[in-house]
Amino acid sequence: MARTQGSHAGITGPRIREAALRLFAEHGFAAVSMRQIASAVGLQAGALYNYTPDKQALLFSLMKEHMDDLLGDLSRLPSQDAPQARLESFVRFHIAFHLDRPELVFIAYMELRNLTPENFRVIEGLRRDYEDALERILSDGVAAGSFEVADTKLATLAVIAMLTGVTTWYRPDGRLSVPEVQDLYWDMVRKSVSA
Amino acid sequence: MARTQGSHAGITGPRIREAALRLFAEHGFAAVSMRQIASAVGLQAGALYNYTPDKQALLFSLMKEHMDDLLGDLSRLPSQDAPQARLESFVRFHIAFHLDRPELVFIAYMELRNLTPENFRVIEGLRRDYEDALERILSDGVAAGSFEVADTKLATLAVIAMLTGVTTWYRPDGRLSVPEVQDLYWDMVRKSVSA
Repeated sequence: MARTQGSHAGITGPRIREAALRLFAEHGFAAVSMRQIASAVGLQAGALYNYTPDKQALLFSLMKEHMDDLLGDLSRLPSQDAPQARLESFVRFHIAFHLDRPELVFIAYMELRNLTPENFRVIEGLRRDYEDALERILSDGVAAGSFEVADTKLATLAVIAMLTGVTTWYRPDGRLSVPEVQDLYWDMVRKSVSA
Repeated sequence: MARTQGSHAGITGPRIREAALRLFAEHGFAAVSMRQIASAVGLQAGALYNYTPDKQALLFSLMKEHMDDLLGDLSRLPSQDAPQARLESFVRFHIAFHLDRPELVFIAYMELRNLTPENFRVIEGLRRDYEDALERILSDGVAAGSFEVADTKLATLAVIAMLTGVTTWYRPDGRLSVPEVQDLYWDMVRKSVSA
């Protein structure tokens, strides 16, 4: 996405994306200027345009990278197991992945409205791919008789919303560890689709 | 919250809140000016200050009213039923209430970060009251042996996140009616906490 030029592109690019992420999460995409992003990484506003054509490209690149990471990591989960084991892997993975990057999760939801239609379609397609992966697990489980789910599409959205919700309240110094949260959510998800 | 003056206050106040809600939802609180809000309701920027002291007061009034409505409607649900019936009422109510006002739901989540600490505490307290009502149903069900929930606080947050998620995908002209959505979610929630 980002045009990268000059010998510091490899270091500056990630620093710009990090600063943009932090500023978007704090103030919202529409309220942040390219000047603010440049200043946060110690660049002149003009120099920032050597790294990225505009603010939209920065937002899109953050969201696209987020979805690519999500789908990449998902593809490495065991896919030959029984549906129940695959569902458990999915639940534990989804929680850990999202707890690792709460700001990106917040932006990926909140700033969808600020993507251009073309960029929105790309992100929407990647989200659909992710949802389809969970829906496939649920359908396989229904076919195998291990799950009872009246509407696999809706159950997919329900499970994802439930799991992603952890990012709104989880605190590393809170009373529960990540594995404890995973155990408790897995128990609820397991029962919610049980035959 | 809002100072109301003049004979049109009763009409203009709601129109201002409606315009603020729409603009905040579309652009984000930080990106919207009092001038834009005034212009959307055909007022001079100066005249808007007759109705509300500032943008923060508008945001707080939107969120507070939203939570007051939520808790008011919740208090009218039957509270003498068995836990399972109370949980079903809660699930159906939560879905219907939130599908009725997706923009307010979006803002109530997204703009928490833009409340002053004092206003945040008020909204947070009201949210806590709402969560406590659900947690009480779950605890009563566990005590009665009708539910099996390892952590009622966490199950409360999980159920609320799952149900509120409907606002991100539900479309009135989609394939499912509100009662169908309520049936499907109730089935999942019922099973997720089952003994």
